[in-house]
Amino acid sequence: MIKKTLIGLALLSMALPTLAFAEAPTPEQLQAAINSVWVLVAAMLVVFMQAGFALLEAGSTRMKNAGHVAGKTILTFGICAIAFWAFGFGLAFGDGAGLFNNNLFGLSGFFMDGVNADAFVSLSASDVPITIKFLFQLAFAGVSLAIAWGGFAERAKLPVYFIFGLLFTVVIYPIVAHWVWGGGWLSKIGMQDFAGSTVVHLQGATAALVATILLKPRIGKFNKDGSPNKIPGHNQVLSVLGVIIIWIGWFGFNPGSTLSAMGDGFFGYIALTTNLAAAAGGVAAMAVSWIYFGKSDIPSMLNGVLAALVAITASCAFVTPLASIAIGAIAGGVTFFTAIWFEKKGIDDPVYAFSVHGIAGIWGTLSTGFFATPELAKTVNVGGAGLFYGGGFRQLWVQFIGVAGALVFVLVISFIVLYLIKITTGLRVTEEEEIMGLDLAEHGTYGYPEQMNHAIEAHTSAKQSNEGGRPVPVS
Amino acid sequence: MIKKTLIGLALLSMALPTLAFAEAPTPEQLQAAINSVWVLVAAMLVVFMQAGFALLEAGSTRMKNAGHVAGKTILTFGICAIAFWAFGFGLAFGDGAGLFNNNLFGLSGFFMDGVNADAFVSLSASDVPITIKFLFQLAFAGVSLAIAWGGFAERAKLPVYFIFGLLFTVVIYPIVAHWVWGGGWLSKIGMQDFAGSTVVHLQGATAALVATILLKPRIGKFNKDGSPNKIPGHNQVLSVLGVIIIWIGWFGFNPGSTLSAMGDGFFGYIALTTNLAAAAGGVAAMAVSWIYFGKSDIPSMLNGVLAALVAITASCAFVTPLASIAIGAIAGGVTFFTAIWFEKKGIDDPVYAFSVHGIAGIWGTLSTGFFATPELAKTVNVGGAGLFYGGGFRQLWVQFIGVAGALVFVLVISFIVLYLIKITTGLRVTEEEEIMGLDLAEHGTYGYPEQMNHAIEAHTSAKQSNEGGRPVPVS
Amino acid sequence: MIKKTLIGLALLSMALPTLAFAEAPTPEQLQAAINSVWVLVAAMLVVFMQAGFALLEAGSTRMKNAGHVAGKTILTFGICAIAFWAFGFGLAFGDGAGLFNNNLFGLSGFFMDGVNADAFVSLSASDVPITIKFLFQLAFAGVSLAIAWGGFAERAKLPVYFIFGLLFTVVIYPIVAHWVWGGGWLSKIGMQDFAGSTVVHLQGATAALVATILLKPRIGKFNKDGSPNKIPGHNQVLSVLGVIIIWIGWFGFNPGSTLSAMGDGFFGYIALTTNLAAAAGGVAAMAVSWIYFGKSDIPSMLNGVLAALVAITASCAFVTPLASIAIGAIAGGVTFFTAIWFEKKGIDDPVYAFSVHGIAGIWGTLSTGFFATPELAKTVNVGGAGLFYGGGFRQLWVQFIGVAGALVFVLVISFIVLYLIKITTGLRVTEEEEIMGLDLAEHGTYGYPEQMNHAIEAHTSAKQSNEGGRPVPVS
Repeated sequence: MIKKTLIGLALLSMALPTLAFAEAPTPEQLQAAINSVWVLVAAMLVVFMQAGFALLEAGSTRMKNAGHVAGKTILTFGICAIAFWAFGFGLAFGDGAGLFNNNLFGLSGFFMDGVNADAFVSLSASDVPITIKFLFQLAFAGVSLAIAWGGFAERAKLPVYFIFGLLFTVVIYPIVAHWVWGGGWLSKIGMQDFAGSTVVHLQGATAALVATILLKPRIGKFNKDGSPNKIPGHNQVLSVLGVIIIWIGWFGFNPGSTLSAMGDGFFGYIALTTNLAAAAGGVAAMAVSWIYFGKSDIPSMLNGVLAALVAITASCAFVTPLASIAIGAIAGGVTFFTAIWFEKKGIDDPVYAFSVHGIAGIWGTLSTGFFATPELAKTVNVGGAGLFYGGGFRQLWVQFIGVAGALVFVLVISFIVLYLIKITTGLRVTEEEEIMGLDLAEHGTYGYPEQMNHAIEAHTSAKQSNEGGRPVPVS
Repeated sequence: MIKKTLIGLALLSMALPTLAFAEAPTPEQLQAAINSVWVLVAAMLVVFMQAGFALLEAGSTRMKNAGHVAGKTILTFGICAIAFWAFGFGLAFGDGAGLFNNNLFGLSGFFMDGVNADAFVSLSASDVPITIKFLFQLAFAGVSLAIAWGGFAERAKLPVYFIFGLLFTVVIYPIVAHWVWGGGWLSKIGMQDFAGSTVVHLQGATAALVATILLKPRIGKFNKDGSPNKIPGHNQVLSVLGVIIIWIGWFGFNPGSTLSAMGDGFFGYIALTTNLAAAAGGVAAMAVSWIYFGKSDIPSMLNGVLAALVAITASCAFVTPLASIAIGAIAGGVTFFTAIWFEKKGIDDPVYAFSVHGIAGIWGTLSTGFFATPELAKTVNVGGAGLFYGGGFRQLWVQFIGVAGALVFVLVISFIVLYLIKITTGLRVTEEEEIMGLDLAEHGTYGYPEQMNHAIEAHTSAKQSNEGGRPVPVS
Repeated sequence: MIKKTLIGLALLSMALPTLAFAEAPTPEQLQAAINSVWVLVAAMLVVFMQAGFALLEAGSTRMKNAGHVAGKTILTFGICAIAFWAFGFGLAFGDGAGLFNNNLFGLSGFFMDGVNADAFVSLSASDVPITIKFLFQLAFAGVSLAIAWGGFAERAKLPVYFIFGLLFTVVIYPIVAHWVWGGGWLSKIGMQDFAGSTVVHLQGATAALVATILLKPRIGKFNKDGSPNKIPGHNQVLSVLGVIIIWIGWFGFNPGSTLSAMGDGFFGYIALTTNLAAAAGGVAAMAVSWIYFGKSDIPSMLNGVLAALVAITASCAFVTPLASIAIGAIAGGVTFFTAIWFEKKGIDDPVYAFSVHGIAGIWGTLSTGFFATPELAKTVNVGGAGLFYGGGFRQLWVQFIGVAGALVFVLVISFIVLYLIKITTGLRVTEEEEIMGLDLAEHGTYGYPEQMNHAIEAHTSAKQSNEGGRPVPVS
């Protein structure tokens, strides 16, 4: 597996005569090393997005659930890391060996087959080592899963995170990943999804949507007449930090998906379009919220940034900087209204996962059907130009097929999985546990023990002074 | 724009026969790829400093303004990202085409001229792609703007952030950047400002000073006799996290300014001097505060770290490790006293932006006039040795001219811009809004809704038990 | 020191005719540049772990000490940075010049000897510049020190951090580092400690153990009958963020210890084993806590992740992916029980530093004695195969010697140093100061001034309404 003697730290401690510089490295070896450094850095940035999602989700929910929300992120990433190594990676990027003509899933490379690159034919075009490719792909699966959790927030039982985390990593995510990136049917018809508006974001968001529908709204979210109440998140500073970390992580997500630092700096071009879109999405969402509410809304702006990043993920390599601004701004604006619309329809999506990652994921995937330029489509060598650049409806139609295929598949499988969980172990904590908060109910201690206790005291004391009396639960 | 076929993720999904490795890369291509990876990583680290500034500024101000303070950082970075792409980058690094002999500003490359590197003559010496150079420079502009906001904290109206953010990015920052780094008059006289003690820090800090003077002190900061009250920040843990993120970001800021990983690892040398200075600044400021107050002060130590980083920014490439310790320690100590001095003079600079980034920026820019070694000046190929290393007063004088020029320019333009805003839309929220807090006043909801509500309840209840009565506003 | 003209940002401002691209870079120069970028990135990731430790330690302790706990991390890293540059690096990696046959410590390269690589013979096998090697090694020393502070938490006097921080950096850490990595006696017998389970983690943890024993338990930790009380940390979200940052940092810690991006991507292999172990440790600890407590415990899961990372640090380069899962899971499980055991024995280790970094450090160091494969031992070129892979007890015995040697040395020296501090300046704050909290006692202001004041008000008011009366201190 490793052919050359490594010049490493542990080695330094050895008697020096055993060391000698190998002959001069070849250009191919140097290129592989550069690409490896770049993709490993990108993988770390994408893994770091777990911190972003933990903070965003915790900041956007209530204090009584904060430890649970943040902590389960690490737990489920751990489950995902092992399950994706054992099964997911092979299903996504292994070779189907003729089964269904390799269109549906891979069947080689389980347990990474002893770190054997030969098992991953569909990744062989890049000179980055298979271990680093694995980490990069794992980070993507982890993001998709983190997105899904948004729909479970503040009311799902802890075992659900174990079970669904495992199944999402094994029987949902890798299948669609195979379709688009592993040589499956969507790749064969030329779907453009450079870094995963559909593969990563729409998938996670669709699972979130199914979860939030099956779990039903949180206690207190809707009044008897169906009108929604605001349940504000407890800490916008943490949410802001989460979004900046996610933004930074996207410099790995999109530019890293080149799997290469060569190509005359094309990864830099992708970083540029990604950044412009994010900026436009945040500004647009802030402006729209200001006009609509009369006050600019910070969570809406944060969602605008994320929605724009989600949207540009498919198209970052195919569109001009100006188009990326348009794609981001539209994503920021549209997401603002769909979030309100879903709430009006009685769907309680606590962190707006389906709007931010689903609607924007759909828009982003379709956007290359409008904006892909012929030159960039040729550079990336996937699909053709979009409607606005002389490509007619052809690419737009392919993109639509891709979105529809992924959406239907994940809807159906997620529904089956979650419905089975619902009728067996159950999905949701009891009413009492939900009111108490998941920190105490699921983990036996508050995530913020001092603040919660003081809050209870203050609340109790305030009630007592005002009403004279009985301790009341904190809501 | 992109000449070679890219070996990328989206590509992997295609039929493999279309793929073939291009011929072996040339040494020049490999070098460009290495430098590109390095500078893109550095750019991300500097963009990540936005998180640092958001946390530091939020942590150093009050709970009632925390969501606003953190959130507006993302909003204004978004505005900056688009405006710098459209206009700022061309004004800073474009070619003035003979106008004023190219001394004052550039006039090419607006909207990046379709990602055309030819428009940016002054950047052509490096083989990093123009998209990555843009992101690196944008990150710097964003830091300068984030510094400026310190002076606006806790009382400026939200529209001011839109308007001033835009104008700073277009008519202030790029001009001075052109003078020093874009081929303008300060570069022609050999000013040494390796990574921007003056260009980035002094500029932002000067705008902050003008803002804080025009906005006047926060309610409650000064008593009738002019003596200052302490308004402590609400969360030192977030401030500490912010400072560590900024420290890490500086490994991109200074070493990344080489725009190269070649040169026998000179970027590592710069990382070393930068790190030593930061360490010395923190320790010195802590010690000084201990002696002066009788208790060591954590915010003072954090400011010491930052001031040292600001100071070493100009000189990191020109001085010895020992000199970098001296430069950092002096910055940490001096800033401590100037922060107190400005407060005594009735200037309420909520996060000490002018002391930390302005005074230390001036000191840092002058410090190369004292400490630059002839060898390093020759290596960098800018200016000459400093006073203590046999260069006489020549370089010190050049540095002084640079500081004075930048300071006067930014003072004047910031004053004009902010004064015009003041007499038109107004700069400051109403007294009622300021007392209520900007989260509620500007965005309609607290950044910490549960904690603020409990605080109000606790406060009210405490007052009621003690005094029997009426709810009082939280101050 | 620097031979080539640098193409840098400051340079760009100069007249362009002075610039010319040097001749094409050689393969060796390109390789050195790639390795330099990689190791500098790794060094930054490891420095960033300071943020992780600051957050984890602050989140795991009480609000009244939070500013102190976080802030002292920056202060002591600053002290460490300067002391390691002046003395530590030379003692660890300098040449002992025949003294004790170079077995015990180095004696060259103090103050980096003017950035002279010749003084660091034991590091000469790598082509990374000495400045970057220094930063990487400094980051490791800083982590070891940050671990040690866990044992001091919530009751040590501030001057102790100055004094012990300095002495640990100079007379403890570099000695063991020299033994294992600097050509000392443990390297000569072939101890396998790829990235420092013993050198970094066991050392820091042993100092923490000595400190926590000499300092005695926190007030209120144990009842009169010796049974322990829970003193929960105040903010699990910050703890979670800290652990994710530390996890990310470990991608620098272990893979960076190759000091190279060549070797057919061996650093990626190490990233893989590291990540699998962390995942397994978190899941295992969560499961164990669920079984043992009846409720899954988030702090236990976080400790499981960390313990697994500590354990895989020695063995990451020597074992298979499957073994890394076993090593991580065992670390996560064992640490859970040792943490409980130490508490039962009356030892109050506030953040479980000795369990997480000490016990897991021992296990990790021994684990290569069981799991090292012959192929990987040969690749790394240190030691031989482990017990389960046909190596017999030989390597296990060497590992045991290494653990015992480091443990005894650090126990003895830490005890001497801390005992001397105890009988001179004293180690611990007064009882009154401890109850008041270190933020107020040591720094004159709360880290969370608004929350603490409201908490006191709420507490007082609650007591008054309930009991009618006298203000009580917040505990």
